[in-house]
Amino acid sequence: MSRDCFAIEAQCGRARAGRLHTAHGDVPTPAFMPVGTQGTVKAILPEELEAIGVRIALANTYHLHLRPGEEIVRRAGGLHAFMNWPRPLLTDSGGYQVFSLQGLRKVDDDGVTFTSHLDGSTRRLTPESVIGIQEALGPDIAVTLDEPVPLDAEESTVRRAMERSREWARRGLEARTRVDQLIFGIVQGGMSAALRRESAESIADLAPDGFCLGGLSLGEPKALTAELTAVACETLPQDRARHLMGVGYPEDILEGLRSGADLFDCVLPTRLGRNGSAVTSEGRLNVDAAPYAEDFGPLDPACECPTCRGYTRAYIRHLYKAKEILAARLVTYHNLWFYTRLMERARREIVEGTFA
Amino acid sequence: MSRDCFAIEAQCGRARAGRLHTAHGDVPTPAFMPVGTQGTVKAILPEELEAIGVRIALANTYHLHLRPGEEIVRRAGGLHAFMNWPRPLLTDSGGYQVFSLQGLRKVDDDGVTFTSHLDGSTRRLTPESVIGIQEALGPDIAVTLDEPVPLDAEESTVRRAMERSREWARRGLEARTRVDQLIFGIVQGGMSAALRRESAESIADLAPDGFCLGGLSLGEPKALTAELTAVACETLPQDRARHLMGVGYPEDILEGLRSGADLFDCVLPTRLGRNGSAVTSEGRLNVDAAPYAEDFGPLDPACECPTCRGYTRAYIRHLYKAKEILAARLVTYHNLWFYTRLMERARREIVEGTFA
Repeated sequence: MSRDCFAIEAQCGRARAGRLHTAHGDVPTPAFMPVGTQGTVKAILPEELEAIGVRIALANTYHLHLRPGEEIVRRAGGLHAFMNWPRPLLTDSGGYQVFSLQGLRKVDDDGVTFTSHLDGSTRRLTPESVIGIQEALGPDIAVTLDEPVPLDAEESTVRRAMERSREWARRGLEARTRVDQLIFGIVQGGMSAALRRESAESIADLAPDGFCLGGLSLGEPKALTAELTAVACETLPQDRARHLMGVGYPEDILEGLRSGADLFDCVLPTRLGRNGSAVTSEGRLNVDAAPYAEDFGPLDPACECPTCRGYTRAYIRHLYKAKEILAARLVTYHNLWFYTRLMERARREIVEGTFA
Repeated sequence: MSRDCFAIEAQCGRARAGRLHTAHGDVPTPAFMPVGTQGTVKAILPEELEAIGVRIALANTYHLHLRPGEEIVRRAGGLHAFMNWPRPLLTDSGGYQVFSLQGLRKVDDDGVTFTSHLDGSTRRLTPESVIGIQEALGPDIAVTLDEPVPLDAEESTVRRAMERSREWARRGLEARTRVDQLIFGIVQGGMSAALRRESAESIADLAPDGFCLGGLSLGEPKALTAELTAVACETLPQDRARHLMGVGYPEDILEGLRSGADLFDCVLPTRLGRNGSAVTSEGRLNVDAAPYAEDFGPLDPACECPTCRGYTRAYIRHLYKAKEILAARLVTYHNLWFYTRLMERARREIVEGTFA
């Protein structure tokens, strides 16, 4: 797959409109990937994702490895068949989840040992096993194992993790046996522009099929996120897609786009949806708020989604107060619709040269 | 509405195929009404109910009175508009919920005083206020207030409650101001055939638009449920619909049909759905069970619903174990599909004279 997996169709400043070619079809970029942590985008059916216009979704290697286990997914015919999603999928490396665990976690040059959050069992991931797991899961895009570092890590820690992540990317790519799967490497480098550049160069040397930008949007100033994204994107080859991991808020996604990123993912629209919080053209709307009890308008007057066409703030607030599943469904659907339209509009503007 | 609100199209033994005419269209009977306690059939969108083939749904007066309150529903344009459901609706009287409360509850000839389960406030329902609330909610079918009695109530208690329910039905019908709403009276009478007959006669004297059969399926022997249903149905006018309240299991619904009931409602298919329990042509299936972890067949091999066409037992079990909302959605959808097909098939067989 690796040669022509990504094509740029237009550029506007650093922002790019492109097309990612995968085994399950093309993804026009920029694109937002809803997060399906456990093999389901929470509260939403795959056919609804299609109706929303979602072109690619993300699932978590760590979670699926622990439950139900990649072997069951493989026997189900892969993750697409298992979750009944016919469009492209990316699974992350699991690194972020493992390193976010509160319990035991021990990292060495050969991998990471950790305690399962489900049953307390001791598990180990290596650069090779992470690719093996993802080959069993069968997404269109797999990601190499990395070692994230906290926002306040010292430079020596950042450097060691960065070099380790680079070596793990090399070993992961080396372990690859599937030719129908793209593998992305992860750029790290903490909050230093110089290390970001060095990381981008050294990962690019390995010629993976695309790149993830990791360890950003951890709470650093937004201008710094943008700068570090731009530094990495300048350094990376132009003919490969860049996934800015875990970003995020609509304005941060647009900033990431301006800095040269193509793909985005975040739990935000789905998590907010379950918490009764709608992302709208007028900003955030918490349906819980008392005034909405008698507000018979839609969540977002500018929105054409089925939630906004069929349901009022008053009804959705009632559902939310009554702890009804439908509240989560309706608001999540709206939020994903909002994100998808946002990316479609950005793409149109990049193509037309009006993106700013 | 009252004259020609129900027409019998075929009969097979005591079982009837009919058509109930309401302000929001016709309901072919027999029909199962999914329960939308708080103005939503849990986990399912109205458009999905339509796709399943549901022709009428039920909501609870008690719950909607307490939250969001009938005034908000009225201002939203009524319950159909509020919940975005264009087809017929029945709201129950609230009596069953009030009398099921654990807290304070005091009944007198003029109504019942109780403590709200939501905020502990003291509330009162009267025969007139219950109709007033339902006129504000705006379902196609309202039900008069009744006083249910426990399974083991003494005959004097049963008789007093029956006579009170009859008087409350009279007062409720008297209080009616909407001409577009049907009002059903409730037959009570405990576990005595004689009292059931007496109750049916005395409620029928009031000439409501239809009848509910209350206080059955409380744990009494199934043969007794069937006998008491049959006694009431024999006594009631043939040209009115009978709703056997809170029943239930597929086999109990079929038994109720055989005894002469036309309408059914129960939380069972939706509650079981949320608990990962599927009602199938092969009996009950609990997806939680370990063998299903590697079972890549559908919930019900004989079912054509979208859940069974698109998703495996292994996947649904995974969702259920992972506490994902989609598990509730998929199994609930299947269960309502199963119930709806069951009723359609019964209707066909009654029309064809092969129902047994």
